[in-house]
Amino acid sequence: MKEFYMNLAFNEAWKYQFLTYPNPAVGCTILDQNGKILAIKAHEKAGFAHAELNAIAHAFKSLKPECSLPQESNALHEFICKNHQGMFKNNVAFLTLEPCSHQGKTPPCAKLFSELGFKKVFISIKDENKIAAGGLDFLKKQGVEVELGILQEEGKKLIKPFLKWQKGQFKLFKLALFMNGSPFGKIVSNELSRTYAHKIRSVIDLLVVGGSTIRKDHPILDSRLAQAKAPDLCILSREKLENFDKNIPLFKVPKRRIYTQIPNEAKFLMYEGGEKFLKIVKDEIDMFLIFQNSNFNTEKNVTIPLNFKPLYRNFLGSDTYGIYEL
Amino acid sequence: MKEFYMNLAFNEAWKYQFLTYPNPAVGCTILDQNGKILAIKAHEKAGFAHAELNAIAHAFKSLKPECSLPQESNALHEFICKNHQGMFKNNVAFLTLEPCSHQGKTPPCAKLFSELGFKKVFISIKDENKIAAGGLDFLKKQGVEVELGILQEEGKKLIKPFLKWQKGQFKLFKLALFMNGSPFGKIVSNELSRTYAHKIRSVIDLLVVGGSTIRKDHPILDSRLAQAKAPDLCILSREKLENFDKNIPLFKVPKRRIYTQIPNEAKFLMYEGGEKFLKIVKDEIDMFLIFQNSNFNTEKNVTIPLNFKPLYRNFLGSDTYGIYEL
Repeated sequence: MKEFYMNLAFNEAWKYQFLTYPNPAVGCTILDQNGKILAIKAHEKAGFAHAELNAIAHAFKSLKPECSLPQESNALHEFICKNHQGMFKNNVAFLTLEPCSHQGKTPPCAKLFSELGFKKVFISIKDENKIAAGGLDFLKKQGVEVELGILQEEGKKLIKPFLKWQKGQFKLFKLALFMNGSPFGKIVSNELSRTYAHKIRSVIDLLVVGGSTIRKDHPILDSRLAQAKAPDLCILSREKLENFDKNIPLFKVPKRRIYTQIPNEAKFLMYEGGEKFLKIVKDEIDMFLIFQNSNFNTEKNVTIPLNFKPLYRNFLGSDTYGIYEL
Repeated sequence: MKEFYMNLAFNEAWKYQFLTYPNPAVGCTILDQNGKILAIKAHEKAGFAHAELNAIAHAFKSLKPECSLPQESNALHEFICKNHQGMFKNNVAFLTLEPCSHQGKTPPCAKLFSELGFKKVFISIKDENKIAAGGLDFLKKQGVEVELGILQEEGKKLIKPFLKWQKGQFKLFKLALFMNGSPFGKIVSNELSRTYAHKIRSVIDLLVVGGSTIRKDHPILDSRLAQAKAPDLCILSREKLENFDKNIPLFKVPKRRIYTQIPNEAKFLMYEGGEKFLKIVKDEIDMFLIFQNSNFNTEKNVTIPLNFKPLYRNFLGSDTYGIYEL
C-alpha cells in the first residue's frame, strides 16, 4: 500500500505542476497511527505553505475542526508546533520529495515531522538542491524512520520542470485540441482547462507567441480567469513590432512588457499557438501541455509527426489534459 | 472523505466495465474500524466473486497472509464466515450498488456484512433488479447502519450498460485513434488497450463489423490477447457473405458463427471499425469506447461532428481511453 499512498501525493502535486514556480511541485499524504488517511495535500504556490505544512495543517483542522488556523506559513508552522498536543504521534507521511531542512521563507519541514512525533516518513526522491537538502539525514538523527525510493521514477518526472528552470530555461508549449485532433474552433478548451492555463500565465516569466496568432485571433493573452497578473510577452514574428495593429487587445494590457527576442533572464516560458507555431519551435520545447476536449469537429487535424511520452495526465471536467515530453 | 472512498470503489469498478457481462460492474472499498483502507476491489467477471466478497477476501488475506483462501466463490464465502474471528467487527464498506440479498450463483452479499459485524455500509445507488434487490433493508434489519446516495450520479453512470443489456440490446462502438485524431495506422493502440478490447470481445454476444474493414485489413477478430474465446461475428455489408475471400483469417476461426443481420437474442454487441462505419451506425450506438495513443501522425483525422459526454476515462500505459455517450 505504500505505493498507493505515495501515488495519492503525486496526483495532488501534479495538479499544481508549473503553478509552484520557482519552487518544485511537491505532494504529501499523511496517515494517522492507525493508517487512516488524514490529508493529501500539495505545495500550491510559491510563498504558500510547503506540501508538508499544508498537509499537516489540513490534518490538524480535520482533527480539531473548532480551531481556526493562521493562514501565513510561518505563523501556521508556529501555531501547529505549539498546539499539536501529541495528536500526530506515530503518524506516517509520504513525500514526493525529501523535506527541506533549511530556514527559507518558511521554517524547515523536516523539523516539523520530528517535533510532532511522526514515526516514519516515506520519501520518493532526494532533494538535489544544495540549500534545501539534508532533511532525510536530519529526520534519521531525530529518530524518525525514513524509507527512500518509493516510486522514484515518478519522483523524477514530477521534479523535472523545477530542475530545468533552476539551471536555465524551461519551455512549455500549450496546445488545445478537439478529441479528433483539430486545433480549430473559437473556444476549444473548457473553463477549467483555461483557468489552469491562465494560472500558469500568471506565474511564468514570459508568454511566447507567433505573429500570425496575433493577427488572426486578436487575443488579449491575459490571466483573467485566474484573476491574476497578465504575463509579459515575446512575439516571434518576421513582422516588426511597430507594424502590428496596436488596437489588438494584448497591446492594451497595462505595464506589460513586450519583447521580440527571448531575454536570457526569463527562466519559465510558455509558448502558445497552433500547428504552424508548434512546427517551428517544437525542437526547443522541454514539455508540452495538451488539452483535449471530448468533441469531434469537422475541421482538419494537426499532422506533425510527434511521439509524446506522457509524464502526467488527468481530467478537467470533460476535457482531458496531459503533460508530455518528446 | 466518504466521497473519496466511494470514488476509489468506482474507479476500480470501471476497470472491469463490460467484462462483468451479464452482471453489473460493481466496486467495493473496505475500511477497518480505525478508518484504514483494507481493500478496494470490483466484480471482475460473471461467475467470479461479487465485488463485496472479493474485497472482503482481499482484506482477509491482508490481515492473515498465512491463510490460503479457496478460489471458488461459494467456498470462499463459507470459509470467511467460518474463519473471520471478528476481524471485520465495526468495519465500514463503500458499495457502488446495493448489495444483493438473493442466493444466486453465490450467497447474498448483504448477509456477509451483517454476519461479519460491519458497522456501516455506504451505498451509492439502489439495485432496481427485482431479484437481487432488498440488501439495503436486510442490512438495516440486522442493525447495520446504511447510508444511501453517495455519488449517486456516478452510480447511475456505472450501471447504465447493465440496465441496457438487461432490458434489450446494448451497443458499444470501439474506436482507436492517434492523439491527433487519426484512425490510420497498422497498430494504433498499445497492448494494454488491445488486451482490454480482446477481453470485451471474449464476453460479448456479437462483434459487428463492416465489409470494408474485412476486405482492407484481413483481420482475424479474435480474443488472443485475452487468451479467450473469439466472438461470433455479424458482417454488415452490401456484399454477400459468399463473395468474401474465405482465406481472410476471421473465416478460419473454429466454431465461429457469422451473421449478416443482427439476431435479436444478442444482448451485448460491440461494433468495431473506422470513420465510414462509425458514420453509418453512430445513431444506433449506446456507448463509445475510444482509445487514443499519445502520438501525432501525418494522416488525416475523423471529421464526423460528435459531442461526446464522458462517463469514465482512464489510462492504459501511454494510451488514454474513455467511455462516452452522445
